[in-house]
Amino acid sequence: MIHLSLIGIGAGNPEHLSLQAIDAIGRCDVILIPHKGAQKDDLAQARRAICARVLDGDGPRLHEFALPERDPQIADYTARVTHWHDAIARVWQREICACLPQGGRVGFLVWGDPSLYDSTLRIAERLQSVMAVTLQVIPGITAIAALTAGHAIALNDVGGSVTITTGRRLRADGWPEGAQTVVVMLDQGGAFSAIAPQGIDIWWSAYAGMAQEIRLCGPLSQVGPRILEARAEARARHGWVMDIYLLRREMTAQGGRTD
Amino acid sequence: MIHLSLIGIGAGNPEHLSLQAIDAIGRCDVILIPHKGAQKDDLAQARRAICARVLDGDGPRLHEFALPERDPQIADYTARVTHWHDAIARVWQREICACLPQGGRVGFLVWGDPSLYDSTLRIAERLQSVMAVTLQVIPGITAIAALTAGHAIALNDVGGSVTITTGRRLRADGWPEGAQTVVVMLDQGGAFSAIAPQGIDIWWSAYAGMAQEIRLCGPLSQVGPRILEARAEARARHGWVMDIYLLRREMTAQGGRTD
Repeated sequence: MIHLSLIGIGAGNPEHLSLQAIDAIGRCDVILIPHKGAQKDDLAQARRAICARVLDGDGPRLHEFALPERDPQIADYTARVTHWHDAIARVWQREICACLPQGGRVGFLVWGDPSLYDSTLRIAERLQSVMAVTLQVIPGITAIAALTAGHAIALNDVGGSVTITTGRRLRADGWPEGAQTVVVMLDQGGAFSAIAPQGIDIWWSAYAGMAQEIRLCGPLSQVGPRILEARAEARARHGWVMDIYLLRREMTAQGGRTD
Repeated sequence: MIHLSLIGIGAGNPEHLSLQAIDAIGRCDVILIPHKGAQKDDLAQARRAICARVLDGDGPRLHEFALPERDPQIADYTARVTHWHDAIARVWQREICACLPQGGRVGFLVWGDPSLYDSTLRIAERLQSVMAVTLQVIPGITAIAALTAGHAIALNDVGGSVTITTGRRLRADGWPEGAQTVVVMLDQGGAFSAIAPQGIDIWWSAYAGMAQEIRLCGPLSQVGPRILEARAEARARHGWVMDIYLLRREMTAQGGRTD
């Protein structure tokens, strides 16, 4: 029997780790650390640093393995992701069986919170369909919370709603219907350029929560181009970039902000 | 000069506290603990327990004070909240000046994350308009992350967007335009009853993250009435209830889930 813990470790600052996460890491027999590519290597290194920080000599052993890549030949996004998750689940099964042939406790350190734009839970569900696995999820500090903390801003207006979406959707569908506040994640770069900037403010962070965090904010029409430059520079310097931003429409007379 | 730290302490589980939050608490001269009413007394007690857990004898002193109430005579919601925040800011100023006449470091322990449906940041901004105050925000684990961790579910569908809204808005405006996944917070009770339940699943938690957490999930048409009963019972037992839920529409042929 395998007990699987998906442990939210926060948005890149090792100090985001919760007491619950530290306890959960310490109870594992094995921590599985996946890696691929420049960004993932940095993230794998960050995971190693977190383990080194919170574990004493009796802690779990770390087991690293390579993740499969997405198949670019599958044109449809959902089909491509589904195929990729299936492939990852098979790798998980192989690695877990090799590490713990008699069963035991396995942990994954999940960036941010395991519920938010992360595939670990979906892969765990696939694993449960082929192996006896009990599942525990430890919540973590999200990149959204790191973004708003860094800028010292509220996520929502008073009584207002918030839409969390992806760069891909913002490009494809434009400003979400009826939204006042929009958080954009998983942006491949500058999806905000696809919307009309008038009356919209942006709060942008790259590497939110990490030591190299960069923040810019202001009217989108003015700050948008500077963000594109800063993002390109950061990417060139670090080899990868991960960013997140909040867009807010200025209040209008009919804006429905009286909730 | 006052340095003000708004410290996210997570969703009710003292183990949600991050290393950064513990460090920030320890650096304060004074932790201000507001309270009012049965619920707030429980929350004040939880804050005291957190301080007792993470502080040694040299830590900050705790200073408790009563919050003003909202004025029910102000009919408009936004005007009522604005008036209330103004009143709270005056109380903060009075208490901080009394505690630290020479200046120093003040902390507030904020439930969940300071950015999400919490007025502390708005009150801090008011304070900055009348006093010299530097402001620091420490992110925390949200009730949303506690909800999804408890149910071991993802917040978003693959590449999908998420709308976070309030019970008041769900009642007033119905299902948010174009939304697939909706998280409802600040519900006074059963706002989901205002929407047609067909094809909608619900994941509901009361006291998410706390020792007394209660969870129910399933098709809204079947589980909705049981949630109303469970909520009423919990409220009668504890004197207060705080709940949160995720609503997800079943996939449809034209559902646009192929992002």
